[in-house]
Amino acid sequence: MTIEKALVVGTGLIGTSVALALRAKGVEVCLSDIDEHAVALAGEFGAGREWSGEEVDLAVIAVPPHLVGERLAELQKLEAARVYTDVASVKADPIADAERLGCDLTSYVPGHPLAGRERSGPAAARAELFAGRAWALCPGTETGADAVALVRELVSLCGAKAVTVGAAEHDAAVALVSHAPHVAASAVAASLNGGDDVALRLAGQGLRDVTRIAAGNPLLWQRILSGNALPVAEVLDRIAADLTAAASALRSGDPGGVTDLLRRGADGQARIS
Amino acid sequence: MTIEKALVVGTGLIGTSVALALRAKGVEVCLSDIDEHAVALAGEFGAGREWSGEEVDLAVIAVPPHLVGERLAELQKLEAARVYTDVASVKADPIADAERLGCDLTSYVPGHPLAGRERSGPAAARAELFAGRAWALCPGTETGADAVALVRELVSLCGAKAVTVGAAEHDAAVALVSHAPHVAASAVAASLNGGDDVALRLAGQGLRDVTRIAAGNPLLWQRILSGNALPVAEVLDRIAADLTAAASALRSGDPGGVTDLLRRGADGQARIS
Repeated sequence: MTIEKALVVGTGLIGTSVALALRAKGVEVCLSDIDEHAVALAGEFGAGREWSGEEVDLAVIAVPPHLVGERLAELQKLEAARVYTDVASVKADPIADAERLGCDLTSYVPGHPLAGRERSGPAAARAELFAGRAWALCPGTETGADAVALVRELVSLCGAKAVTVGAAEHDAAVALVSHAPHVAASAVAASLNGGDDVALRLAGQGLRDVTRIAAGNPLLWQRILSGNALPVAEVLDRIAADLTAAASALRSGDPGGVTDLLRRGADGQARIS
Repeated sequence: MTIEKALVVGTGLIGTSVALALRAKGVEVCLSDIDEHAVALAGEFGAGREWSGEEVDLAVIAVPPHLVGERLAELQKLEAARVYTDVASVKADPIADAERLGCDLTSYVPGHPLAGRERSGPAAARAELFAGRAWALCPGTETGADAVALVRELVSLCGAKAVTVGAAEHDAAVALVSHAPHVAASAVAASLNGGDDVALRLAGQGLRDVTRIAAGNPLLWQRILSGNALPVAEVLDRIAADLTAAASALRSGDPGGVTDLLRRGADGQARIS
């Protein structure tokens, strides 16, 4: 079983990028969105044509995390696809929603491509958005092997690398490598509001890199963070404690306290470089 | 008065990069360092020749902040140059040191190019390191106009943009735009030590950007931070307070508290983009 026809539900940045990647590989792509304008725009960019309700091989649900379960239930009721996946950046809550709404879990493979941009919407989409990136898959005990195989094909068609991981482990991991760093970047960027124009003229590339992701859509990110609240809060508390201790060490003239943090930081950075 | 012959004291990353930039503009460059190996290496890279003690137009003191005043006093005693500048990333302490050591302040223009790399030493130096970057100059009331003009010529030869600012204002500004962001990047990177390998496989470009500068030399950065301790501590406390409040808002299910920080972050980021 391969992907000949796919449905992308939600033609924002990620959904439209998936559609473009599939189109580039010759897959027929149908598009659906509650915003007709977004579907039309994605269609103009070559992402596919509006879905007329026909059954497809794979439905990719690319809506905000809190709407994934609801949309999955609707699509399964319509028998829209043989296999379903989503791209939400948190996994435990959408899976719990799907269970609560009585969805068929055998045909649903929860997924999360680790890719994004600061800009959102179909106009920001790019077929190569996922090239070389990790794409988490969180199949549960009920998930069918055929369904997993088909979604792995999706990941491969998008040029990404599948990483299989449990849902809770996924959420703790993205709290660490994505969500908490986003909040930290926002906090650094927010501190700049206290500076005058001369101060900001001294900004260099380092600051631009640290704060780049803080340009992301605040409402979208609030939803992502709220959907992964406790794991993110834990990491934020650890980062805040390190910063408070560093401030205290600087005030008391204790260079050792600062050096220790800088050394641990260099060690942590080396793990992803 | 123009720069025909310059002396670079300290052939690390910044000093050697200044030397290379000046050489590229046809300036004769002499090199000096307490580490003979570093001078020889910089010379091999085409940064200039070892200083034999002759008088130059401009001496660029590229040593760690806590050694600037001492080196300035030595060079002025030797009548090494007509004008002196330094490149230390903090300014109030080196200026205070120079005053305390009885240096001639009319010929000394405190400076700070806002450029760097994660790697240090002459092998990492590049002539174009300063191209398009800000270069802070902090002349005091005693500084001679001729001296300022000559150091502005240095900035221009390096392709950078001079930004004139008071020393205390400079230190508060770099605490905000450089030093505190460095510590924040270190704290985010340090948190990664708590993650397993699967978690780190989910790391994307955003995390890499946020933590890139945490790879910097811990001892070098400890000295920079210690030389600007109070301004940095103030910014760190503000960032930590924002992170603690965000963690608390997430735990109590108050999305507004998180959205506010994300919005302020997007505003702050927009000021430097």
